[in-house]
Amino acid sequence: MPTDPVPTHPTPTGSVPTDTAPTDPAMSVGESGEDAVLSVILEELGDLRSAATDLAALTLAPGDDAAVLELTDDGAPARIVLTTDTLSQDQDFRPSWWAQQDQGAAMGRAVGLKAAAQNLSDLNAMAATPVALLVSLTLPESTALDWVRGFYRGLAEAVRREGAEHCRIAGGDLGSGPGVSVTLTAVGRLPAGRAPLVRTGARPGDQLAVSGPLGAAGAGLALLEAGHPCDSAELARLRDAQIAPAPQLTTGAQALAAGATAGMDLSDGLLRDAGRIARASAVRVRLDEDALNHQAAALLPAAAALGLTPAEARAQTLRWVAAGGEDYELLASFPAEAALPEGFLKVGEILEPGSDADGAREVVLTGAIDDQGWDSLRRR
Amino acid sequence: MPTDPVPTHPTPTGSVPTDTAPTDPAMSVGESGEDAVLSVILEELGDLRSAATDLAALTLAPGDDAAVLELTDDGAPARIVLTTDTLSQDQDFRPSWWAQQDQGAAMGRAVGLKAAAQNLSDLNAMAATPVALLVSLTLPESTALDWVRGFYRGLAEAVRREGAEHCRIAGGDLGSGPGVSVTLTAVGRLPAGRAPLVRTGARPGDQLAVSGPLGAAGAGLALLEAGHPCDSAELARLRDAQIAPAPQLTTGAQALAAGATAGMDLSDGLLRDAGRIARASAVRVRLDEDALNHQAAALLPAAAALGLTPAEARAQTLRWVAAGGEDYELLASFPAEAALPEGFLKVGEILEPGSDADGAREVVLTGAIDDQGWDSLRRR
Repeated sequence: MPTDPVPTHPTPTGSVPTDTAPTDPAMSVGESGEDAVLSVILEELGDLRSAATDLAALTLAPGDDAAVLELTDDGAPARIVLTTDTLSQDQDFRPSWWAQQDQGAAMGRAVGLKAAAQNLSDLNAMAATPVALLVSLTLPESTALDWVRGFYRGLAEAVRREGAEHCRIAGGDLGSGPGVSVTLTAVGRLPAGRAPLVRTGARPGDQLAVSGPLGAAGAGLALLEAGHPCDSAELARLRDAQIAPAPQLTTGAQALAAGATAGMDLSDGLLRDAGRIARASAVRVRLDEDALNHQAAALLPAAAALGLTPAEARAQTLRWVAAGGEDYELLASFPAEAALPEGFLKVGEILEPGSDADGAREVVLTGAIDDQGWDSLRRR
Repeated sequence: MPTDPVPTHPTPTGSVPTDTAPTDPAMSVGESGEDAVLSVILEELGDLRSAATDLAALTLAPGDDAAVLELTDDGAPARIVLTTDTLSQDQDFRPSWWAQQDQGAAMGRAVGLKAAAQNLSDLNAMAATPVALLVSLTLPESTALDWVRGFYRGLAEAVRREGAEHCRIAGGDLGSGPGVSVTLTAVGRLPAGRAPLVRTGARPGDQLAVSGPLGAAGAGLALLEAGHPCDSAELARLRDAQIAPAPQLTTGAQALAAGATAGMDLSDGLLRDAGRIARASAVRVRLDEDALNHQAAALLPAAAALGLTPAEARAQTLRWVAAGGEDYELLASFPAEAALPEGFLKVGEILEPGSDADGAREVVLTGAIDDQGWDSLRRR
């Protein structure tokens, strides 16, 4: 997504005295001060910031310099899994995607859900169990307190989902800056004796599969950028896949149980991420265009809503599936004879490595799609 | 610090083809693409991203969805300590603090040092041993590749210091945004049987001490904002305390060994942070103005360089000491009879709690200083 100049958040009209009740949702964080923001956060998190679970206990309540996380000693070396991701306003979400009246709590909730999705999906892709999230939130001074409330509500919602029940919010940092920037760090555990699911084990002959249909987030982004009202359940589903994703968080463990040889989170588009599996495993990947076209057909309502011709729609829906990104599904390879876990869809197979002399590419696919996913830094 | 509009980084003049050698330091990250940025990072980190230490081993090399950190089993439940902090351009540092030619590697290094200082100092304040840092870096597309190189060089430098030898860089995230934003997450361990140093244990009669003289970072900020050239060793030391701090990382463990009853990182100014100890421990704090004035006298060269009158200089240097912030020293309470660790300076004592009916304040100090440190979100 191109970077636009930073829009400023709307500031409340009229003058608000600084001693107004700190939880007045119409106040900005700049007007209400840090303590009021912290009160809102503590209120929203409830016992998610302190209660012990079967796997971990925060042995020191938030409010000190750092969180102390005590891992239950199960007789094996404790292993933790760590990941961090940032969402930036105008890069990963745009205020213009929400109606003016929804740019407070509703937008905050969506950003919280998406930030959690990014990080928890990374842990899922390692077959790790999330045990803690740390949050660093940079906000323009004009940000509505209700945005913060919505954000933490979204986080809380995300960690109550299946697969994240053991996850606690272990603390964080608050600061101000020119645009909203949210960095989450997720900590996961691997059960004793479970190896993580990594990218390096794909073998020639393996099946390549995804944990669910692709392209919804890409189609949703196109609808949002076009300003489409998404006034049907189907279009709203695609929009929500972009603004408030809800990834499955048990597919990593399911894949491992089914014999997966390699796996990773699909966040930058199938073509780009399949290339990463290929490089990490020193193999090539062949994607099955028929399988992708089958998935693409489900996105034709979005193409129609955008007024594309049938030919344009076929190309665009295939591009959403193959290069759209942000689907947060698992991409995994399985032995040829393995039964895929329920809900998984085969998208291709693993080939022997090629050589530069062949002009062999890491990802083989016939057709008209760009062979690039999303490079978050390259200009376009 | 007030938030200014985001300045854009200078872009190189002339047109640079996108297939230029990826490590050309004059190229921007936008021009060179993510892989080139990753190459620079890997190059700068060397074995800091992979080699095992006595305390921890990264059992999976960076490049997968998340890092796997295996904690050596020492027969006790493994405890990890987690903290995260963000630095934002124009909020925590300004490009104008560096000459044009130093806004690449030199500025990047300083930001890396400061980001590490913030996080490692938080772990030190818990008496924890740093074992891993995660990095999330948001950069304008025009950021020079050399800035990134300098940044990771600064990080590497920070974790090679005494107290951080066991720390590895465990992975991270790269993205683009309108201004530079850096979020670090630090993971620490507590040796078996060592309780963390927390804020809640200060008792009436305890001494209150800091791990070194305060106010250098505040004085440095004033010099930078005034555009002073800092052309003496003394003034350069104050400037560097602000732009590239090098906190002591063994003072937390030293304080604990000396019997400290409470402790915390001094990042928001003595007055504000002493109030936090007071609230957490349900006591009051009396600061010794003579002790603070003694520390303030060391900052008079900065006041003179800024052209302050003697009366202004006395007030301003005391304000730097008491409310300047960003000193990254340890603030700790000790039993009245305890010998303070070497280098620690007594700044006051712990009093019985007061009551609202007394009009009692949490922090008692006579004199003309504002009773506020730095509230990172409140408008001023």
